[in-house]
Amino acid sequence: MQRYDIAIIGTGPAGVSAAITAKIRGKNIVLFGQDMLSSKIRKAERIENYTGLPAISGSELAQKFKEHLDALDISVTEKQVSTVYAMGDYFALQAGEDMYETKTVIVASGVVHEKTIEGEEKFLGRGVSYCATCDGRFYKGKTVAVIGSSSDAPEEAEYLAELAEKVIYIPLKGDAPAERDNLSVLREKPLEIIGDSKLTALKTDGGEYEVSGIFIIRDAVLPDKLIPGIETDGSHIKADIEMKTNIDGLFACGDIAGRPYQYIKAAGQGNIAALSAVSYLNIKK
Amino acid sequence: MQRYDIAIIGTGPAGVSAAITAKIRGKNIVLFGQDMLSSKIRKAERIENYTGLPAISGSELAQKFKEHLDALDISVTEKQVSTVYAMGDYFALQAGEDMYETKTVIVASGVVHEKTIEGEEKFLGRGVSYCATCDGRFYKGKTVAVIGSSSDAPEEAEYLAELAEKVIYIPLKGDAPAERDNLSVLREKPLEIIGDSKLTALKTDGGEYEVSGIFIIRDAVLPDKLIPGIETDGSHIKADIEMKTNIDGLFACGDIAGRPYQYIKAAGQGNIAALSAVSYLNIKK
Repeated sequence: MQRYDIAIIGTGPAGVSAAITAKIRGKNIVLFGQDMLSSKIRKAERIENYTGLPAISGSELAQKFKEHLDALDISVTEKQVSTVYAMGDYFALQAGEDMYETKTVIVASGVVHEKTIEGEEKFLGRGVSYCATCDGRFYKGKTVAVIGSSSDAPEEAEYLAELAEKVIYIPLKGDAPAERDNLSVLREKPLEIIGDSKLTALKTDGGEYEVSGIFIIRDAVLPDKLIPGIETDGSHIKADIEMKTNIDGLFACGDIAGRPYQYIKAAGQGNIAALSAVSYLNIKK
Repeated sequence: MQRYDIAIIGTGPAGVSAAITAKIRGKNIVLFGQDMLSSKIRKAERIENYTGLPAISGSELAQKFKEHLDALDISVTEKQVSTVYAMGDYFALQAGEDMYETKTVIVASGVVHEKTIEGEEKFLGRGVSYCATCDGRFYKGKTVAVIGSSSDAPEEAEYLAELAEKVIYIPLKGDAPAERDNLSVLREKPLEIIGDSKLTALKTDGGEYEVSGIFIIRDAVLPDKLIPGIETDGSHIKADIEMKTNIDGLFACGDIAGRPYQYIKAAGQGNIAALSAVSYLNIKK
């Protein structure tokens, strides 16, 4: 299997900036995210303080980032990394059905802004999942709920409807999928995930629904779910001024590395993370 | 005396970025530096990794920074801050003959790249000075050397020639001033500053010259000379991920806050420093 020098997770300003500097430094990189880059950027109406680009719209800034990536022949791998495994001297990344190997990882996957749902962390891996592609097959013939907080969520629900007996879709952000025989849309507010040793139901402000699994689909995933063993501070990864984390060879930057949530700060940290990864690679040689 | 909310020292990418974000956040700021911004930027041939502006020349990037400042009505105060005094709940800044008062300070003054000269730190304040305007008057009727490493250095030497008996100018970088009766230009390499309790001579690769004072004029000054009491790490100011230093209300960003020396990293840190200063001001209210 090909082993990359640097895998970069995320195509917001931090990930794009890390990719640009890593590529310029001659590294063999893979950049996971969306080819249209971060949807959060594209939707920003006007950014006043991206130094050097006064009063730019989010879609214009995303376009400039895209042109910069294109100028350096950097392509985006449109897959969602669900887990990063630290294997000692390299990392294994699970993305859907595929595995990737890399010597270093830069995590720039953004931050979970929404509050988590009561019971979410308790049942994580025991009925709660963030990835339909990864865990959908465990729910053949069962009833699942999908809580949709990202533009990918309807598609994930469609996929689950092919496997599960029944899918209840709760749209928190964005569109809902079209309803069909075994896929219903429920416009209620999720309150609590209920169960004993195993998850049994989802409680909302409209009632309680018996389900075997709950898929929570957000733009970003909680860092300690994405990277087992990572040291966190709330929803952020703990990183030092060189963007190093507690895991050797793994760096974090942008919103996931803490406040402030700012484009130019994220771009700056992406650059630092890339150069820290480059020096890590040089020392390991 | 007017007391500013935030004084920003330096007009490289860090200082410019800090000024932009501080101004947008409605703060009363003063930005010290050069109206043409950092000469180091303007001289960069081509910058490949300023995220969003692929393959831009240094002069184009400086132009974009200038336009961003102009769009927000931010002017540059063309003075060199020689000392920052922490007064408890505010700061006093010495700039030439003038004093400024400010509630917070963001230091973005760049890093001294040159090696210091042997004896420089030993005789700092006892014959070695970084500022002709500040210390020139102590050398009336005496002989001084000027070691020029910045574009301002010839002008500082001209000023000293009006006061001192004799000025020896050693150009390390850039142009030398025109020679005249009491100002001679010496194209030699300074090796050591010599003296006992007081400075007595400058040793070069060409000889030894009796002088009473040595003015070393660089683009940046050593941080512990600029800010008495600042905690440093070599030629850098120690700052945390929020750009805080050991002095409450004083923040550092850009090259002076440590490697890597990169434009986009500096711009990102300037943004963080500005927002840290804003929250410091909010808490102090």
